[in-house]
Amino acid sequence: MSDFITKRSEDINKWYNDLVIKGGLADYSDVRGCMVIKPYGYAIWEKMKDELDRKFKETGHVNAYFPLLIPKSYLSKEASHVEGFAKECAVVTHYRLKNDPDGNGVIVDPEAKLEEELIIRPTSETIIWNTYKNWIQSYRDLPLLINQWANVVRWEMRTKLFLRTAEFLWQEGHTAHATKLEAIEETEKMLGVYADFCADFMSMPVYKGVKTASERFAGAEDTYCIEALMQDGKALQAGTSHFLGQNFAKAFDVRFMPEGGGKEEFVRATSWGVSTRLMGALILTHSHDHGLVLPPKLAPTQVVIIPFLQAKNPEVSAQLLAKSEEIKTALNKLGISVQIDKDETKRPGFKFAEYELKGVPVRLVIGPRDLENNLIEVARRDNLTKELVQAETIIEHVQKLLEDVQANIYQKAMNYRTEHTKTIDTWEEFQKQIELGGFVYAHWDGTAETEEKIKELTKATIRCIPFDMEISAGKCILTGNDSQKRVLFARAH
Amino acid sequence: MSDFITKRSEDINKWYNDLVIKGGLADYSDVRGCMVIKPYGYAIWEKMKDELDRKFKETGHVNAYFPLLIPKSYLSKEASHVEGFAKECAVVTHYRLKNDPDGNGVIVDPEAKLEEELIIRPTSETIIWNTYKNWIQSYRDLPLLINQWANVVRWEMRTKLFLRTAEFLWQEGHTAHATKLEAIEETEKMLGVYADFCADFMSMPVYKGVKTASERFAGAEDTYCIEALMQDGKALQAGTSHFLGQNFAKAFDVRFMPEGGGKEEFVRATSWGVSTRLMGALILTHSHDHGLVLPPKLAPTQVVIIPFLQAKNPEVSAQLLAKSEEIKTALNKLGISVQIDKDETKRPGFKFAEYELKGVPVRLVIGPRDLENNLIEVARRDNLTKELVQAETIIEHVQKLLEDVQANIYQKAMNYRTEHTKTIDTWEEFQKQIELGGFVYAHWDGTAETEEKIKELTKATIRCIPFDMEISAGKCILTGNDSQKRVLFARAH
Repeated sequence: MSDFITKRSEDINKWYNDLVIKGGLADYSDVRGCMVIKPYGYAIWEKMKDELDRKFKETGHVNAYFPLLIPKSYLSKEASHVEGFAKECAVVTHYRLKNDPDGNGVIVDPEAKLEEELIIRPTSETIIWNTYKNWIQSYRDLPLLINQWANVVRWEMRTKLFLRTAEFLWQEGHTAHATKLEAIEETEKMLGVYADFCADFMSMPVYKGVKTASERFAGAEDTYCIEALMQDGKALQAGTSHFLGQNFAKAFDVRFMPEGGGKEEFVRATSWGVSTRLMGALILTHSHDHGLVLPPKLAPTQVVIIPFLQAKNPEVSAQLLAKSEEIKTALNKLGISVQIDKDETKRPGFKFAEYELKGVPVRLVIGPRDLENNLIEVARRDNLTKELVQAETIIEHVQKLLEDVQANIYQKAMNYRTEHTKTIDTWEEFQKQIELGGFVYAHWDGTAETEEKIKELTKATIRCIPFDMEISAGKCILTGNDSQKRVLFARAH
Repeated sequence: MSDFITKRSEDINKWYNDLVIKGGLADYSDVRGCMVIKPYGYAIWEKMKDELDRKFKETGHVNAYFPLLIPKSYLSKEASHVEGFAKECAVVTHYRLKNDPDGNGVIVDPEAKLEEELIIRPTSETIIWNTYKNWIQSYRDLPLLINQWANVVRWEMRTKLFLRTAEFLWQEGHTAHATKLEAIEETEKMLGVYADFCADFMSMPVYKGVKTASERFAGAEDTYCIEALMQDGKALQAGTSHFLGQNFAKAFDVRFMPEGGGKEEFVRATSWGVSTRLMGALILTHSHDHGLVLPPKLAPTQVVIIPFLQAKNPEVSAQLLAKSEEIKTALNKLGISVQIDKDETKRPGFKFAEYELKGVPVRLVIGPRDLENNLIEVARRDNLTKELVQAETIIEHVQKLLEDVQANIYQKAMNYRTEHTKTIDTWEEFQKQIELGGFVYAHWDGTAETEEKIKELTKATIRCIPFDMEISAGKCILTGNDSQKRVLFARAH
């Protein structure tokens, strides 16, 4: 099975596509830029969703649902917003089909033209703030802390499964606040929720920081982001959290009476989102040449048990199955998901390869001789090691092992990132390092012109101005002009 | 608060809208036919979703996700399918906006016209069967048991919050089977899942049956349905499960090699769905003049505790709050959701009305005197009765009470339905009864002409040919022709 997966060293893009498709995560559809998320991929996404949703609720947010379709004119109400999204909008112009009178099958009914075209939401700030107008009058209505799980469409010319698709699934939080301080705190808090989720559940370390003006969300005053490093040396923006200031409140005239009365003020806003792009990040962070490596906390099946069933010896088979069921029941009680593979038509080697491809974190194999010796073979997916474990200790062993795997792949990703994050001070070295891949901390003079020039020359962008960098004066890597702080450069997905 | 709710006897449609909007469930949006599902409404929908999803998984189904957009030509591949949906399709014709060179703001870019128009899915049979083509080759790939949670758009001219909206949320199961028998079993099984959910969670009894040919889903060989009775005397189709035969398999050329080899066969299919329409059904089944009545199993807040806080006596207030928290903690441990209302700015009467409007099943009130006497006032939403309960027994009392409320509102709905289901044998009586509302069991000669004629004359449709009716010969209510079985008539939403 893994024979069909291209090696990373040969072609890392092809390897990625092979994993996604052959690993049963997603597939292309016949609709340009749209993918089908297959059951195994969707099961991982559901686990991500459940945990994120839990974290959102824990931090006081509630879910709601707003329309898919947005009147074209709404988009224009916030000037930079329309500028950012107009070029990638799917536009609904008609609401009916009919039989072609000339017999050419079904055609769009020209009489069913909409008075105003509708846009399929590329993001929902406009429709939501148009609604908040009716919900917010007084400081008592604030803060309003709402999240939405939804599909969105952004017409992308170059698509890649999970990483860049015309339609994708995501959540978008949209909050309204009385004060700027509170809104900024919310923006930071939700970035923290994302970063913790990436570290604790995806085993993926991220840098936190703020985008430069030119990389800001269309309509935001500040865009905070988390940036991860993929195995191909490219950065990936894994999530964003925007402080929107009063931009959308002004565009949709959303004002509130402050506590203590006085003059009405425009509301302050944030929005924040992560999407099925995280699936792509997960795959590109941990996987191996011959398959996926899933963090146990997100693996739909955490443990697979393969008993070596003996067609010629039903008694032994029954014992092996009984042992398998016993282990499954005990692990299930601990909340660990287990699959027993009883298929007698496939060779063990084939099965091993299949579960490696699927990234199942732990594999238990029980053969007749092991059973006699009261031993079970335990293989871990992350480092492909095997050991024989006493049957009596198998439950606690597996429980501990899943934690180890979760921690180990995080550490591995962290080590990779550390090795591939360089601090560089000369333009020549900078160019070389960007070519090699990874993150580069370098000084930048703070101008959009220099940022653009560096991008032109090296394809590297400023991923963020990191939160955790000390202020330290230096000279811009390109222009030699003064700089107060290093920023984080990389080529990005 | 309940003063603002129209009485059912005055105008039941207005009453319904008042409840939905003022109860915080949903709101109209500025987009024609599209609604905003507000947090309280969405919380109920989430509870429905969670339980249905659990039932689907328990019966062996997995979730996946298919594209929102469907090429126009797909729709035409199944003849009756396109016939059924062509008239209500939202059509995407362009993929970009641009600034109008004449300065009229943002316009659709005529150069960004799609070669083939895309339809926003009104249902996903076509895109899914086009995908299944690649997933199914052999009997080993069957059955394929997939469900999708998604939004769909059907352009409706007359809309009503939750009951009929252009965009709605739903789940759609799409399964593929080797044999006709297995597919029919699946169709029936899922109808059973829906009926059980309606009874056990929504406290809403439903009739199960099969649709007549003219009410069948476009592309189905048989449409099974559940039909509920609303308080306005109208029936409501709460869910459908379709046996699709080989129609979609033939349209998209999905064949499989049967076990034992031989000639390839076309796959058999089912599809089944319920939607946010269930929210409308829930409201219309149980609610009262002054507000919602929610079944405890679907209520976001099952118990509200209102301590009579004493601004002038902080010590007593602290005791009341401590008692409230103690009860909340104990109830939470039993999985019961509890809200403590600590707001000191609102009068108790106002609060009572508010929680009645919201349909919170149980209200506990703790006053200083009650605390001294070790008593707690318990009010139940369904029958508006109150009683004083010994504080020591409050936890088990509330737990039991929630079960009672769940059962009681089911019984009430069942009694209402029984009273409003008549067996009728003459045309005159039939007309009178249909005018009065409710279900009517009557004989029908089995022709589409008669069915249509009855609809014209009375606005009543055949809701279903019920499963549980005995075969008993009779004469058609309209034509007097022979009939083998009674069918279920009603005016419907």
